[in-house]
Amino acid sequence: MLKGNPLGDPHERPLLVYTPPGYDDEPDRRYPSVYVIQGYMGYLAMWRNRTAFQQPYPENADAMFARGDAPPAIVVYVDAWTAYGGSQFVDSPGTGNYHSYLCDEVVPYVDALYRTVPEAAHRAIQGKSSGGFGAMITPMLRPDLFGLLATHAGDSLYEYSYIAGFPAAVRHLRKYDGDISRWWAGFRSREAFTAPEDGDLAILLGVAAAFSAEPDGTPVLPFDPGTGVLRPDVWQRWLDWDPVRMVPRYAAELRGLRGIWIDAGTRDEYYLDIGATAFRAALLSAGVAQDAIRFELFDAAHGGIGYRYPQSLAWLCQRMAT
Amino acid sequence: MLKGNPLGDPHERPLLVYTPPGYDDEPDRRYPSVYVIQGYMGYLAMWRNRTAFQQPYPENADAMFARGDAPPAIVVYVDAWTAYGGSQFVDSPGTGNYHSYLCDEVVPYVDALYRTVPEAAHRAIQGKSSGGFGAMITPMLRPDLFGLLATHAGDSLYEYSYIAGFPAAVRHLRKYDGDISRWWAGFRSREAFTAPEDGDLAILLGVAAAFSAEPDGTPVLPFDPGTGVLRPDVWQRWLDWDPVRMVPRYAAELRGLRGIWIDAGTRDEYYLDIGATAFRAALLSAGVAQDAIRFELFDAAHGGIGYRYPQSLAWLCQRMAT
Amino acid sequence: MLKGNPLGDPHERPLLVYTPPGYDDEPDRRYPSVYVIQGYMGYLAMWRNRTAFQQPYPENADAMFARGDAPPAIVVYVDAWTAYGGSQFVDSPGTGNYHSYLCDEVVPYVDALYRTVPEAAHRAIQGKSSGGFGAMITPMLRPDLFGLLATHAGDSLYEYSYIAGFPAAVRHLRKYDGDISRWWAGFRSREAFTAPEDGDLAILLGVAAAFSAEPDGTPVLPFDPGTGVLRPDVWQRWLDWDPVRMVPRYAAELRGLRGIWIDAGTRDEYYLDIGATAFRAALLSAGVAQDAIRFELFDAAHGGIGYRYPQSLAWLCQRMAT
Amino acid sequence: MLKGNPLGDPHERPLLVYTPPGYDDEPDRRYPSVYVIQGYMGYLAMWRNRTAFQQPYPENADAMFARGDAPPAIVVYVDAWTAYGGSQFVDSPGTGNYHSYLCDEVVPYVDALYRTVPEAAHRAIQGKSSGGFGAMITPMLRPDLFGLLATHAGDSLYEYSYIAGFPAAVRHLRKYDGDISRWWAGFRSREAFTAPEDGDLAILLGVAAAFSAEPDGTPVLPFDPGTGVLRPDVWQRWLDWDPVRMVPRYAAELRGLRGIWIDAGTRDEYYLDIGATAFRAALLSAGVAQDAIRFELFDAAHGGIGYRYPQSLAWLCQRMAT
Repeated sequence: MLKGNPLGDPHERPLLVYTPPGYDDEPDRRYPSVYVIQGYMGYLAMWRNRTAFQQPYPENADAMFARGDAPPAIVVYVDAWTAYGGSQFVDSPGTGNYHSYLCDEVVPYVDALYRTVPEAAHRAIQGKSSGGFGAMITPMLRPDLFGLLATHAGDSLYEYSYIAGFPAAVRHLRKYDGDISRWWAGFRSREAFTAPEDGDLAILLGVAAAFSAEPDGTPVLPFDPGTGVLRPDVWQRWLDWDPVRMVPRYAAELRGLRGIWIDAGTRDEYYLDIGATAFRAALLSAGVAQDAIRFELFDAAHGGIGYRYPQSLAWLCQRMAT
Repeated sequence: MLKGNPLGDPHERPLLVYTPPGYDDEPDRRYPSVYVIQGYMGYLAMWRNRTAFQQPYPENADAMFARGDAPPAIVVYVDAWTAYGGSQFVDSPGTGNYHSYLCDEVVPYVDALYRTVPEAAHRAIQGKSSGGFGAMITPMLRPDLFGLLATHAGDSLYEYSYIAGFPAAVRHLRKYDGDISRWWAGFRSREAFTAPEDGDLAILLGVAAAFSAEPDGTPVLPFDPGTGVLRPDVWQRWLDWDPVRMVPRYAAELRGLRGIWIDAGTRDEYYLDIGATAFRAALLSAGVAQDAIRFELFDAAHGGIGYRYPQSLAWLCQRMAT
Repeated sequence: MLKGNPLGDPHERPLLVYTPPGYDDEPDRRYPSVYVIQGYMGYLAMWRNRTAFQQPYPENADAMFARGDAPPAIVVYVDAWTAYGGSQFVDSPGTGNYHSYLCDEVVPYVDALYRTVPEAAHRAIQGKSSGGFGAMITPMLRPDLFGLLATHAGDSLYEYSYIAGFPAAVRHLRKYDGDISRWWAGFRSREAFTAPEDGDLAILLGVAAAFSAEPDGTPVLPFDPGTGVLRPDVWQRWLDWDPVRMVPRYAAELRGLRGIWIDAGTRDEYYLDIGATAFRAALLSAGVAQDAIRFELFDAAHGGIGYRYPQSLAWLCQRMAT
Repeated sequence: MLKGNPLGDPHERPLLVYTPPGYDDEPDRRYPSVYVIQGYMGYLAMWRNRTAFQQPYPENADAMFARGDAPPAIVVYVDAWTAYGGSQFVDSPGTGNYHSYLCDEVVPYVDALYRTVPEAAHRAIQGKSSGGFGAMITPMLRPDLFGLLATHAGDSLYEYSYIAGFPAAVRHLRKYDGDISRWWAGFRSREAFTAPEDGDLAILLGVAAAFSAEPDGTPVLPFDPGTGVLRPDVWQRWLDWDPVRMVPRYAAELRGLRGIWIDAGTRDEYYLDIGATAFRAALLSAGVAQDAIRFELFDAAHGGIGYRYPQSLAWLCQRMAT
């Protein structure tokens, strides 16, 4: 699916498939599966990163199953890295067909090689930040594949999560005559993240590549980089991917889901606590049953919330077992 | 004009009229006039406030004329305070008719009592922040009265200057069950500005009263306070007052102006440097002559830019003298 | 006392003496007096400054007496401004003899012209920030004059309130080859506070002039401006003026005071909540009676706490009446 | 050397020894060696961590040698993790003998197993942050072992790098009645870094364990946690480990070094750019030759400077080759 992707990224990707304790002991047993996707700037090998006083998520997930906190499941860690730093898990002429890659290549591959229960009711998707976004939208688009989701601080309510970053980008781009491709060329030719604008502009460019690329793959910014004025048609392409705004269009699909975990920190720098609140409200308006939703805001910023992934993983597994 | 205003604010207001050096010596001479309006939270008596190492603007303006830096003019300091802290210089059922008060009461009064040149070509308006906003819109609405304007960090490009504040307001309003009137009642009954949310919410409420009040005067927020979701129709009422968006509607009026001073600091917390840039671009697109515009971005934040008022005052007076 | 001061500042100063309601009706009655001093960058006329939704302290104090919240007192607002922006209310070859001016000129003058009770037990001093510092030290030095004090976020515990600002100053001074007199010359010749370093360096220079001037008046910084290394002897001169460190030396004087109000905000940018805590602890260690002290930390930063002045004023007046 | 360490940490540690390209081809050739130590919260496995658009240092170092940017060297990555998150590379009753472990166990071990040039003139040490501190002090203490050093943003000038954090710690400790051991007990029993105070207090506790532990291993804070007042004797124990203050005591040792690389970012949150400047000035005052020192301040904060390690590594290798 990724062959010929516009950025020349590898079309073969690493995949990490975890089988739970006991998998080999019961060769006929089938297991539910949970697909885990990463935030912007994430790629598969980073799941092995270590930090002080904390364990990598795959180890925590394993420990969670080992403790018996949830029924066992196969956990599939998917890579959707691009040269821009991420794909938003959509099909785009700017980055490649990462939605199709996940749904039409990875899922069948896993189902073929592992003893999954190959049904949406037993297949969940989980992610944080951009990965939370992917976890929200993928089941809307493919309810035949995914029947549950967990979003941790997932991108949503773009008037707050994205617009707040645009004026900073306008200021940064003054250095580059308003031409983000000039920044990009420089970024690629020097040490990354040594200019203060690098973080902001990398995400902006990558999301534009995912949401608003020209047919030839050129990313188009949702605002005029000289004046900052929103470009309504381009901005609308972004809004069309806002999970909060997508809910009414996918109401039937969402009503069919077995479990939706939504959380975020109340100090999230991208205001994704508000996005989470709005997403839940939209779900309820769309007729999703209250008891299908697990919602929590907690005291945290956008970073440092990885300890919650095992919690939603356990919840997803419990939901799939009922 | 302010009689019966909905907030019960005084309908008689203080007015400070400055006559330049020599005014009494030449009893037949007529002078151009410059109307000065204040930012949000400002009222007339504050022009006398003193701070370390700085002089009040009226003294600096007087010194500027005394040095002969510009042809003499009458300077009129106007009060548009309301119980909410400001009026945005518009007519509104939420606050009162401050636009009409300025144009139809103060201007005729000054023209009657002082030896002005009572023509738009010799009448300018100047302000900072919300006062800059007032200075931008008043000549659009009343080109028969005002032929020049100076805006210092004037409110504009609302997707950045206002939207960035909405998510903070949503978080603040959690304490008040999403009901800003509960915050307001508390604010009025205790020491002002002792709660961290006071500054943000006061401006939000006041601007909603100015731009999006119900016919009965009740301010309506441009977003759902529970979820943060923008209310498109209410938000559109705000956008209808965005100077950048108003320019095309008032292109002819703006082309008739003799001088437009636009400036802002490049670190403005409300991104009004970007607003200033967009306002200038909109003017040029509307056919305003480049040499009618004086534009500058400089190294500053939103505060601490009062030293620039005498500069634009001198420029306005010079333009009116040509 | 201020004649011949090293900065050429006026030796005659404005003084604001408030007499309470009823003062003229009882021509034989004598009143306690409270001396009010200002924070750094403050001068007498600033007491008349107005801000939104708030009243100037002198009006709030008058209202407090008018309501009968405390026994009446004479309130004396003292000016100790210097060309550097403040004096710290000490005698210094760098700024002038502002301690002596307050104690040996203002107090006798007020006692001569107004019907005070001219005794320490009926004379209090109150201030905020640098004024709180002055309120702490003046009764230590002159217990014969002042028998009570109120400090709001008063300068103290200099390892936190001052040292935290030194590295920023070192960075700022790189622009000036480490020579603060070069910054000062520039500051005086351009618009004040238009360079980001102006606020920090102005206070640093002024405090050095007050605490560590050469005999000829030249301020000496407590650190090497090139390397930031503390100059132990100069820094010790500052520490000698740290109220927390002064307490043991003035234990007897402090034990004689009738009332000590100490407060600060728990988010004070200069950590004066910790200074307040340490000052109280030092007082208790020095044998000051617990019930002579009124101590409170409250939710606030360094600014915006003027609403508390009438509260400590009332308390001081009540203490003097007992 | 780490057997019986007071925290019960493993006494056997991982060690990563890199041999340069060609090492196996020239079995008689001996190589200089560079010891690399980590910042606080770092442990050996973290060298393999991956982030977007960047490579791990060991890979960058290898690429640097492969490009021929410097003469080949053996690079030794040392682990000095403790249960508190770090050791500061000193011998302490609070953490263990990490200085001796490095000097008397790791160095002999490497010299025995690898073809090093086992002389100080051909042995260097490099580190960042706390690792930079270790790199500064270890050659002072053991000039017989280490003849060159590179410090990137190394801890120094403690009045700025450490004192600035104490008042925040005082505020944090109010929640714990001033008892950091209560915080520590909580931290160990819940998800790490989920309380806002966790980062600050972890470093404070660990450094106190390294610099000012009781003989029985109990860490003693350098200030009274209730009042914030510095404890002069404890604080002096910290200052005795300030590289800037250590220089005069180790002047002869430092004059004997062949190369000293010092750098830091001008926006370093711990002001280590000022520490770097002061360290260099102290070296020059101690008679270290100017051309033995490579000094640079650059535009960066404390984080994100890993791209500089290969630069100082190349420089150290070049110095050792001359």
